[in-house]
Amino acid sequence: MAMNVLGYAAQSAKAALVPYRFYRREPRADDVVIEILYCGVCHSDLHHVQNDWGRSTYPLVPGHEIIGRVTAVGPEVTRFKAGDRVGVGCLVDSCRPCSACGQGLEQYCEELPTLTYDDKDRHDGMPTFGGYSERIVVSDRFVLRIPDALDLEGAAPLLCAGITTWSPLRHWKVGKGSKVAVVGLGGLGHMALKLASTLGANVTLFTRSPGKEQDARCLGADRVVLSTDEAQMASVKGEFDLIIDTVPYAHDLNPYMPTLALSGTLVLVGYLGPLEPAVNSVPMIMGRKAVAGSVIGGLPETQELLDFCGEHGIVSDVEVIRIQDINAAYERMLRSDVKYRFVIDMASLKA
Amino acid sequence: MAMNVLGYAAQSAKAALVPYRFYRREPRADDVVIEILYCGVCHSDLHHVQNDWGRSTYPLVPGHEIIGRVTAVGPEVTRFKAGDRVGVGCLVDSCRPCSACGQGLEQYCEELPTLTYDDKDRHDGMPTFGGYSERIVVSDRFVLRIPDALDLEGAAPLLCAGITTWSPLRHWKVGKGSKVAVVGLGGLGHMALKLASTLGANVTLFTRSPGKEQDARCLGADRVVLSTDEAQMASVKGEFDLIIDTVPYAHDLNPYMPTLALSGTLVLVGYLGPLEPAVNSVPMIMGRKAVAGSVIGGLPETQELLDFCGEHGIVSDVEVIRIQDINAAYERMLRSDVKYRFVIDMASLKA
Repeated sequence: MAMNVLGYAAQSAKAALVPYRFYRREPRADDVVIEILYCGVCHSDLHHVQNDWGRSTYPLVPGHEIIGRVTAVGPEVTRFKAGDRVGVGCLVDSCRPCSACGQGLEQYCEELPTLTYDDKDRHDGMPTFGGYSERIVVSDRFVLRIPDALDLEGAAPLLCAGITTWSPLRHWKVGKGSKVAVVGLGGLGHMALKLASTLGANVTLFTRSPGKEQDARCLGADRVVLSTDEAQMASVKGEFDLIIDTVPYAHDLNPYMPTLALSGTLVLVGYLGPLEPAVNSVPMIMGRKAVAGSVIGGLPETQELLDFCGEHGIVSDVEVIRIQDINAAYERMLRSDVKYRFVIDMASLKA
Repeated sequence: MAMNVLGYAAQSAKAALVPYRFYRREPRADDVVIEILYCGVCHSDLHHVQNDWGRSTYPLVPGHEIIGRVTAVGPEVTRFKAGDRVGVGCLVDSCRPCSACGQGLEQYCEELPTLTYDDKDRHDGMPTFGGYSERIVVSDRFVLRIPDALDLEGAAPLLCAGITTWSPLRHWKVGKGSKVAVVGLGGLGHMALKLASTLGANVTLFTRSPGKEQDARCLGADRVVLSTDEAQMASVKGEFDLIIDTVPYAHDLNPYMPTLALSGTLVLVGYLGPLEPAVNSVPMIMGRKAVAGSVIGGLPETQELLDFCGEHGIVSDVEVIRIQDINAAYERMLRSDVKYRFVIDMASLKA
């Protein structure tokens, strides 16, 4: 039977988020029903709410860094049972037979994956609603196990900020001895520092703001380079095997290219749009360097990340808020006034 | 004793090439003295002659696809002896101790390699002069062995056009089952088709000119796609593991990005400059795709290429000319009126 669920929704692009009741589907045979305990607040929640990408559908319930507890499972579900600590990230479904899905890279599903919110269920065509709500119903393939060692509130951002930086670290084979740089210290950047340093890499933070040195070092950076300082930039010429660029707006990549080592890659994980100003091919050609992109991660690599974090005691640095404070939190997020991720305590919904 | 050598030189950016006498150095202990038999004509010869990159020094003797016969060797040279068939490509020296040189990737020498012409010898500071001449003196590390099976005139372009396409094919691990596309059918493009198909890849040519179908198929293409035809472009969506882009001028990369497979790479080997119009990051991020660059190749991989070509009977398709016809050949090259490379028969110098 479909469930009546309370959440917070935007009713239009200009509106504040307000309480909203909607139905969750009756669980299918492979579905897991989850009581949501915490939900991280991602910058893309705000992009969706404000219709920045021009494709939003309202009412819109955001949230794709979901942590909860299983309350029921469909008859075909064997990996989960009531009481399990679980997570749901940016995806709730995909086509399954395509080559990308076959490789466990559901984020690159050739038929496009189903997003956790602001999308349509691929079976019944109903809108998907995210984690700013009491409960969610998700196919078991898209449910993740949260290791016992992890604090639940700090684990929430692993499901988007964490996996978005983990996937390129693994794809480009970062490990002991690797030299990695991270551009930008926000939700993604602070996870990239933690994960890359724990993988054994030598890690540098590129930032435009002086004064981030101490925080960055606490998060795992071995060095902080002011990207506006030419001398500091020159001092890291030819250094990095991988640069993870988390900046979410258009910015000049040219100053970073000379800091890549031979055959190095700068991977964009935050910015969608034209690369302006134009990237010059000369340093790329003269050093076999690449500019690449990467988006979140597949389910197997997300579980791998969670298990890695459980083993090494890594969670996100979070500020826990009540759902009633979400609109104020968006204002602060726009000013980068958060270290480093807001997480909603969903118990506040009942208040 | 320094040798008096006849060649052809440009005396200024506006001048035609004319006969020019200059000295080659007295051989050092590790030098090989080579009588030049053939020299390929590369598009970059013309760029240097015309000072298109603003860094040319005159008089300028071009030519970096050099085939010849050893006439003498210095006392430390053990790999070559008088009478050997040898080649010299774009490089005649590099720093040697840096990491790139240590990996046999002298083209990416951290101290910059010494170019075969329009550069300065790193020991005596004398200008380097290229292969449009009777003889050349080169350190043995930069001399290549030409397999007996290869025609000498057709082997000349392997030393630049060949290695420029071979190096990315090998770096990105192209082999049986790979899907490769080549953009542009000129000196580089026709070698890319031959090499990729012989490596076992399924090969597609992207071209803007209808009517290249038959030639492309003879050169190894399994398919020809008109890049100006949207339906044809849509039919190869998500196809290619590697695209080798040989186009030597600014052009729009955006139509090619959707034709890359998941985690595929478009590698630029022909164009130096800003990537305009701007490349959009969306297809890169949504498919973990990359734009990269690559330049010629190192000495070990150039020898590997020559041995591979010897084994498989691959040479460049060439039109042999006399040195006296070089200026007319440049005119024709500008109109792409050559299939696919001019090669100078240096015996004509004696005429």
